[in-house]
Amino acid sequence: MKNETFTGTVSKEYPDTTGNEFTIEGRNAVIEAYRAGKPVDKLLIQDGLQDGPIQTIKREAKKHNTITKFVTKERLDQLSVTGRHQGVIAYIAAYEYAQVDDILASAHKKGEPPFLFLLDNIEDPHNLGAIIRTANLVGAHGVIIPKNRAAGLTATVAKASAGALNYTPVARVTNIGRTIEELKKEGIWFVCADMNGTSMYQLDLKGPIGLVIGNEGEGVGRLVKEKCDFAASIPMKGEIDSLNASVAAGVLAYEIVRQRMNGIS
Amino acid sequence: MKNETFTGTVSKEYPDTTGNEFTIEGRNAVIEAYRAGKPVDKLLIQDGLQDGPIQTIKREAKKHNTITKFVTKERLDQLSVTGRHQGVIAYIAAYEYAQVDDILASAHKKGEPPFLFLLDNIEDPHNLGAIIRTANLVGAHGVIIPKNRAAGLTATVAKASAGALNYTPVARVTNIGRTIEELKKEGIWFVCADMNGTSMYQLDLKGPIGLVIGNEGEGVGRLVKEKCDFAASIPMKGEIDSLNASVAAGVLAYEIVRQRMNGIS
Repeated sequence: MKNETFTGTVSKEYPDTTGNEFTIEGRNAVIEAYRAGKPVDKLLIQDGLQDGPIQTIKREAKKHNTITKFVTKERLDQLSVTGRHQGVIAYIAAYEYAQVDDILASAHKKGEPPFLFLLDNIEDPHNLGAIIRTANLVGAHGVIIPKNRAAGLTATVAKASAGALNYTPVARVTNIGRTIEELKKEGIWFVCADMNGTSMYQLDLKGPIGLVIGNEGEGVGRLVKEKCDFAASIPMKGEIDSLNASVAAGVLAYEIVRQRMNGIS
Repeated sequence: MKNETFTGTVSKEYPDTTGNEFTIEGRNAVIEAYRAGKPVDKLLIQDGLQDGPIQTIKREAKKHNTITKFVTKERLDQLSVTGRHQGVIAYIAAYEYAQVDDILASAHKKGEPPFLFLLDNIEDPHNLGAIIRTANLVGAHGVIIPKNRAAGLTATVAKASAGALNYTPVARVTNIGRTIEELKKEGIWFVCADMNGTSMYQLDLKGPIGLVIGNEGEGVGRLVKEKCDFAASIPMKGEIDSLNASVAAGVLAYEIVRQRMNGIS
């Protein structure tokens, strides 16, 4: 968080700088990473570059649906670990993504009603890690995150998850709303965190459930919210607006746990 | 979080680098800050320096009970914002601390049974900020933190609190255990977060209460735990050990809210 000044709004580090291990810098190295089938999470390309290798990288990025950002040379210089980025830095996922089907299979194998977390664009890797950690401890079967914009499974996320990434599968989907529609066919109900929703204490949160948590700044997006069966609010007494996203996820998840334990309906 | 590599354990940034606004660098600037009565939270001094101004700074630090760390020149170079630290960097509290009495007075004024958070050495400023944010939203009257070792009210904490620091008073005490003893005389009960405690759902958490949250790595210290009336555990199903400290604080605080709302006993 160097160079950040206190202005009241959050100046986002994008992407989060991780160790050497998960960063690939330089044109050939990035092209090779794609050819070796490495899971490139995000790609930063220097604005204005048009040469052959850069065109190849852009083609690979398109083919693999990699989130690509065009940034200034100064930004790359700042983010570069090796100091030899040659106009391109790729971020490799620290962990392998699971499939949504794997998550459902795990619930069925345990003989439990599915309990999923769906994260509609959590951007802060510390929050993402903390939520995966919570998902593990409440006995959720997996976490679903969107492919675009949101934080991916970087080393920072892995660290913040305190080991949970080794146990709790994380799947990445193109469209959270569409995934919700498909999972509804499996009999799963969806509840989204929403300040204007019904108090979580008044909802029946038992049975197969997907808990949808929104973005740090904007909450759950409108299109995703419309797909949900319920909107749950956390009672709030104070002067400020909202809880930290990972705290909100924890509080809602534990209300689900409490209802499941007590058989309250 | 530059230069951090993924090793499985957390390499702690100490202290968290904040903006210029709350950092004072250089010998004269630091001496002047003390003489102007600024609340120096933490002090970093280059190991081995023994000259006059440094001796003066050490004396002031002792007089004001400032947490002081001796570090390498390389560490200071890395943390320095101005590049001219001259062997010393001071971190100034971004917010004024309240007194414990102010917190109790606020509860009495509102005609509510006191609801306090006591943080036994939370070290991560993001966690501290998120917990103050939660304290505001659950309607707690204040947060009590220890003077030594723990994170202070830096700009990073203020930012992570999302504005809550403007409303929720934070008091700093020399000894959390002693403060608990004094507050018991006011009729407040203390419950500490403890993995080996009674399930939070089975405890009566209504009435005047102090919620004690422990350090990220070690939990609540033994001496503090012994002063508490109850130990509350959060039910955990997963493979890993513990929730993130700010998530755990949120989950416990909302169980208190739920019991207060429902009048369950």
